[in-house]
Amino acid sequence: MAHSGSLLWRNLRVYQIYGANTEVGKTIFTTTLCNATSKLYSSESTAYLKPDIVPLAGWKSIDTQQEGFGYSHIRKYARGVSVTTMHQYDLAISPHAAALGKTIPKDADLLSSIYSHLSDAARSGNPGGWFFIETAGGVHSPGPSGTSQAELYRPLRCPVLLVGDAKLGGISTTISAFESLRLRGYDIEAVLLFEDEQFRNHDYLKAYFEKKHRVRVVSAPAPPLSESQGSQEDAERMARFYNETMLSGTVKSVLEHLDERHKARVTRLESLSSEGHQRIWWPFTQQKLLSPAKITAIDSANGDFFQTLNAPRPEDFSEHRARQTPAPQEPLLQSSFDGSASWWTQGLGHANSSLTLAAAYAAGRYGHVMFAEAIHEPALALAETLLKGMSDGGNDRLSRVFYSDDGSTGVESALKMGLRAARTRYGWPADTKLGIIGLEGAYHGDTIGAMDCADPSAYNEKVEWYEGKGVWLTPPSVMCRGGRWTVKIPAEFHEAGSGMAGEMSAESLSDVFDFRTREARGEHQLYEARVERVLKHHLDKGRKFGAIMMEPVILGAGGMVLVDPLFQRALVNVVRRSQHLFSPESVQQPREKPDWTGLPVIFDEVFTGLYRLGRFTASSFLGLDADISVHAKLLTGGLVPLCATLASESIFRAFASNDKTDALLHGHSYTAHPVGCQVALESLQQMQTMESSGSWAEFQTGGSGAEDACWSIWSPQVVEWLSRRPSVAGVWALGSVMSIHLESPGGSGYTSTAAVALRDALRASNHGPAQNPWNVHSRVLGNVLYLMGSQKTGKDVVLHIERLLRQHLS
Amino acid sequence: MAHSGSLLWRNLRVYQIYGANTEVGKTIFTTTLCNATSKLYSSESTAYLKPDIVPLAGWKSIDTQQEGFGYSHIRKYARGVSVTTMHQYDLAISPHAAALGKTIPKDADLLSSIYSHLSDAARSGNPGGWFFIETAGGVHSPGPSGTSQAELYRPLRCPVLLVGDAKLGGISTTISAFESLRLRGYDIEAVLLFEDEQFRNHDYLKAYFEKKHRVRVVSAPAPPLSESQGSQEDAERMARFYNETMLSGTVKSVLEHLDERHKARVTRLESLSSEGHQRIWWPFTQQKLLSPAKITAIDSANGDFFQTLNAPRPEDFSEHRARQTPAPQEPLLQSSFDGSASWWTQGLGHANSSLTLAAAYAAGRYGHVMFAEAIHEPALALAETLLKGMSDGGNDRLSRVFYSDDGSTGVESALKMGLRAARTRYGWPADTKLGIIGLEGAYHGDTIGAMDCADPSAYNEKVEWYEGKGVWLTPPSVMCRGGRWTVKIPAEFHEAGSGMAGEMSAESLSDVFDFRTREARGEHQLYEARVERVLKHHLDKGRKFGAIMMEPVILGAGGMVLVDPLFQRALVNVVRRSQHLFSPESVQQPREKPDWTGLPVIFDEVFTGLYRLGRFTASSFLGLDADISVHAKLLTGGLVPLCATLASESIFRAFASNDKTDALLHGHSYTAHPVGCQVALESLQQMQTMESSGSWAEFQTGGSGAEDACWSIWSPQVVEWLSRRPSVAGVWALGSVMSIHLESPGGSGYTSTAAVALRDALRASNHGPAQNPWNVHSRVLGNVLYLMGSQKTGKDVVLHIERLLRQHLS
Repeated sequence: MAHSGSLLWRNLRVYQIYGANTEVGKTIFTTTLCNATSKLYSSESTAYLKPDIVPLAGWKSIDTQQEGFGYSHIRKYARGVSVTTMHQYDLAISPHAAALGKTIPKDADLLSSIYSHLSDAARSGNPGGWFFIETAGGVHSPGPSGTSQAELYRPLRCPVLLVGDAKLGGISTTISAFESLRLRGYDIEAVLLFEDEQFRNHDYLKAYFEKKHRVRVVSAPAPPLSESQGSQEDAERMARFYNETMLSGTVKSVLEHLDERHKARVTRLESLSSEGHQRIWWPFTQQKLLSPAKITAIDSANGDFFQTLNAPRPEDFSEHRARQTPAPQEPLLQSSFDGSASWWTQGLGHANSSLTLAAAYAAGRYGHVMFAEAIHEPALALAETLLKGMSDGGNDRLSRVFYSDDGSTGVESALKMGLRAARTRYGWPADTKLGIIGLEGAYHGDTIGAMDCADPSAYNEKVEWYEGKGVWLTPPSVMCRGGRWTVKIPAEFHEAGSGMAGEMSAESLSDVFDFRTREARGEHQLYEARVERVLKHHLDKGRKFGAIMMEPVILGAGGMVLVDPLFQRALVNVVRRSQHLFSPESVQQPREKPDWTGLPVIFDEVFTGLYRLGRFTASSFLGLDADISVHAKLLTGGLVPLCATLASESIFRAFASNDKTDALLHGHSYTAHPVGCQVALESLQQMQTMESSGSWAEFQTGGSGAEDACWSIWSPQVVEWLSRRPSVAGVWALGSVMSIHLESPGGSGYTSTAAVALRDALRASNHGPAQNPWNVHSRVLGNVLYLMGSQKTGKDVVLHIERLLRQHLS
Repeated sequence: MAHSGSLLWRNLRVYQIYGANTEVGKTIFTTTLCNATSKLYSSESTAYLKPDIVPLAGWKSIDTQQEGFGYSHIRKYARGVSVTTMHQYDLAISPHAAALGKTIPKDADLLSSIYSHLSDAARSGNPGGWFFIETAGGVHSPGPSGTSQAELYRPLRCPVLLVGDAKLGGISTTISAFESLRLRGYDIEAVLLFEDEQFRNHDYLKAYFEKKHRVRVVSAPAPPLSESQGSQEDAERMARFYNETMLSGTVKSVLEHLDERHKARVTRLESLSSEGHQRIWWPFTQQKLLSPAKITAIDSANGDFFQTLNAPRPEDFSEHRARQTPAPQEPLLQSSFDGSASWWTQGLGHANSSLTLAAAYAAGRYGHVMFAEAIHEPALALAETLLKGMSDGGNDRLSRVFYSDDGSTGVESALKMGLRAARTRYGWPADTKLGIIGLEGAYHGDTIGAMDCADPSAYNEKVEWYEGKGVWLTPPSVMCRGGRWTVKIPAEFHEAGSGMAGEMSAESLSDVFDFRTREARGEHQLYEARVERVLKHHLDKGRKFGAIMMEPVILGAGGMVLVDPLFQRALVNVVRRSQHLFSPESVQQPREKPDWTGLPVIFDEVFTGLYRLGRFTASSFLGLDADISVHAKLLTGGLVPLCATLASESIFRAFASNDKTDALLHGHSYTAHPVGCQVALESLQQMQTMESSGSWAEFQTGGSGAEDACWSIWSPQVVEWLSRRPSVAGVWALGSVMSIHLESPGGSGYTSTAAVALRDALRASNHGPAQNPWNVHSRVLGNVLYLMGSQKTGKDVVLHIERLLRQHLS
């Protein structure tokens, strides 16, 4: 979907006229509205645009003759109104060339032209202007490039006037057109249609829309029929029609309604932040430090971009100063790149109509249906897809899918699975205190059980019931620093008196993942020795462990730390070969292959999995197969909450018994809700198709073998450049994520404010065309600013942002 | 939405022909298909039904003349095919009466007639039959009663052949019609349309549907145009057309495609349970005891009913016996009343198209957008609606809304809020061990923190990290027993030497809630004394408490126990007036009114709130206002997971500080996801409208005052009757819930199997017309069988089920 800002100005009421079908009277109603606004308001304040009279290449679904009608008709009957067609405006296409299908404007260019045109109109117009944009044919009639108009124009997200169909069959076409618009997030301000005394669709539709959708339906008599279109007599009749019939109280009331709705929309949008400030309790937000001005009011979103209220920046005014809003002629909405991928969820673009339709289909087929001892198609198909994807990614252990609602609940399920499997195999009593083995800086979610799987940190220390239940190993981490890929090894690794330095370096990130070479060099030995030492220390003190839990490759909320993958391999390898350590008295052998040994290995792939780092499963970067694997966030492509915890058959069987209370007694009411499963299925299929069809080739270096192992949408050049800045401690990029670690003299971590200035600078910057620029909405984690695209972010957008970074960190 | 079974037989391929508009060629394509199937298969195996040639009352959107066309045309050109119109079949409407709009069949009757007709056809037909049901006009053209056909026929959920529109504008009408069907959960098996050489819509639509939706598009030449319809020459031309043009390879390939899809659908449906059995890890299920035969395969759902695979009942065959499926001529789908309201979530009917459209609108407007320091319209509007609803329900304390994903996460948020508020007010250090005060038999969710808020039970005892952190008071409970409403008071209440009996009884449930009278009688004194005694006991031992947490009125998963509301009042009242007990040294006074005193009161209304018991908030039954209130399940009307935790300003301010780590550090990626918020908004508005418009009047007794306080969709008569059965220990009904507690000699509780026989009997029973009966899918909690309708379950359905109960418990 092409990017453009949405159209909203205080002084300009902009409407897009869509038709339920062709020949339903779009032009007549638009002419009427133009006449009425120019008479009731001011003749200079009304403008009309017909963006598209270009027929399609290769076929001829829009009749140029016919569709030219609107343009000439309105020039004739709405005198004084500014009338424009896009091809005359700035696309150098003569009607002749257009008819030959020679020059087809790109969707993005067409949107950009429209935005500019409207922007000019808003800047030059007097207060209270009206602007009507007429589409061609029906809502899904193709635009110049072939894209359906309802999709093409969606980024503009104009309020819609839908001209209904008064003919036989028109009830159906009008409702369906309405639904097609609605499911693309359009607001339909009114349905307008002619009165036909035979069919009386207007009676039915009035009752229908007002009752079901609280949408105003306005009907009016049809214009006089003419046998000889174009005659002088005909023209006079039309003129009389416009003068007499249509400039009625009805039309006036429509305009009043639209005016009221426009004002109400702006007022509400401008009050969202302050009203929210009074009623909302935000997650992870110290609200004492949050003024309304700092709250982003999001009017809509599309692709990689939010449309946010164009309020003054927080630094421009104090909390106590009255809120200042843009001048009437300035746009009220600002395009803002969703640089946190909406808290790491976004994969296929906001308002992706394929995902919307998948959600709507499941809602229409099932709603939600209870899942205990029941099965439905989307839940099974999703389970199959996940298991196959993991198997293709190298893990052939996983055979079971347990659904829950989010990463945190999925981690709790995983934890219950792992602990039980270990306890039953080793024959420990039910009240044995079991800990987990994890990494320092881990983060697994906000419910108490998930919190207890992480070491004490700013996130959990103050939570009353938090009690870290594990042993946390400090991992070596990887960053590009001063142009070199560097592995930083914590001091405690050297207690053993190893001769290795505190750092290792590599030519490229792919070299860091080249385990064959590194293990041949013996780099893992230091790690394994450290792991063995730590485990022995705790086991000797009598501690018992039930599972190992890790985020593979990246510690996310813990500070976007790229863990040396060789260390994660070492940790798992040591645990897996050390069954004797965990249960010296245990003689029971694994009963099936592949089975877990030592301890069950839980990978929390909530953030790192499902293509966030460029691959279906992040575990494939480690060459390790988890016994339990947790997947959420990108699972639904960024639309609705859903989590899947995958487990091996061996883990699953640990709960088998003739006692139903031995079962995994965990489950949420909306477990495996069909909407989530269907959306996830569509989402995974889309991402898998992108992978197999080489959609990300432009971001891959094209190098052979290992070089391709670690690709990112962020260019190696910008990573290298950033890593040499004095203010940058290090940087890495993988998949759609780039993480910039800033020098923070006052200490790094969650409480640091080192990255705030860069975040604010990115938000204050505007890129793109002067009339339709966009900025970057990003999030910081203490001294870390990360940027995260969706899996569909284009190269042009990435380059823009990279340019911004070079500008602000130069 | 009217109820009917969905149409699926192994030996009968049934399709519904929908049109993108009127006059697009539905009849021509249907005739072609009829001709082709009767030629390629067997002339006796094809049938055609035109259910609706009845025009609408009051207006005339369907031209009887025109729509009669299909019927007569097909009789003429598809000889040998069984041709029926519904009005000739069993609705006694002559075309004349129909034309006058005198007799309009009800939607339910029309569906029932169609189902019966098809059922007869399946029973009598030879294997491999085809059945085509032609609709009138476009997908949303009104049926006889005025209901849109796409809605009206949805319960039948036939696979659809959509006849596309080849005319100018037809690309748009075809795609929109497709989307309208899709969002009602229809499967469109193929799009058929004529070839028009000018517009070439078929080229565009082929590419569009095959790429975007993997749906086959088949085009064919249009029939010869005629100037003189009805002439002999014309008829010959048509006959030639059918013989030569249309009986082509194209038509054959369509039939093969349909045949393949039909078989694939049946095969997949029949394998859902066994495939799921291999891959799914079900919540709360001992899978060792679960055979595929016990797994309900849900093909779709509609209103209060599932459509489940009509497999043999579990008791009919052993696990090792081959799966037996119905004979070819028996229906493959069974209508099954969703008697657990899909794990207590269902409020507005499965596949409610208003909720679907709300979800689709939010998906199309936003997708998901991140919520930290951001605000969007649905999140704010929902917060406003919830706060106002609670305030109207009597609670004017609540001012803040915190969103999470499900009841369990919402309870964890509530817990963090309550503990922090108490700890900061009382100045306790961060590492103080705080417990909660709760009720024995409570249930607050499955994450560890929520589990720790409940006393040890079958649900949590075996979970490795469970550690109940509180004091649990055994509550008095209420049931109708032997025809009398009885309050059972636990033995420990009498330690104080009170003279009161172990039971109290009341005339009606409303009397139990008549606190004025009961408190005037001093019935609360025993309760308050007990509460004070228990608290003092624990406080004297040095225990510290941070909150009181309860499910108001009903302990749900803990066994559907109706707690004596007077006891919950007593507990809260004692705690609120006893600040000195919790912090004897505290001198700090509440800073604002209304403020919490003693301890923050958390009400977990996840199950009991939002009209499940008949009122917006269950706390209004208690006349108590919580400081923190948790809402989920019905919040989205039963569509997607979402939870809202509401808190007072005083609780909220406990987190205010200049240190961001003092904030409530809890949040999920999909916090306040727009789809959930928009659906919840629509859902609450619908339920509030139902309340204010008296939709539940038929269930209310109509008595004055107190009598109306406790109404239920389940009749007082059946409650009274059930309560006198020897096998019934007690029963209660409130709102849409009825809970039948069976005598269980082996002990009650989760592990009891006393209710299993009744559950199985309800599932084995079939009610309704012989050809389209339905059964009841219910769930048990140990010795308790509960039945739960949606908020839209009709009286007729309730009566059916009550009759079943009388039959099985007589």
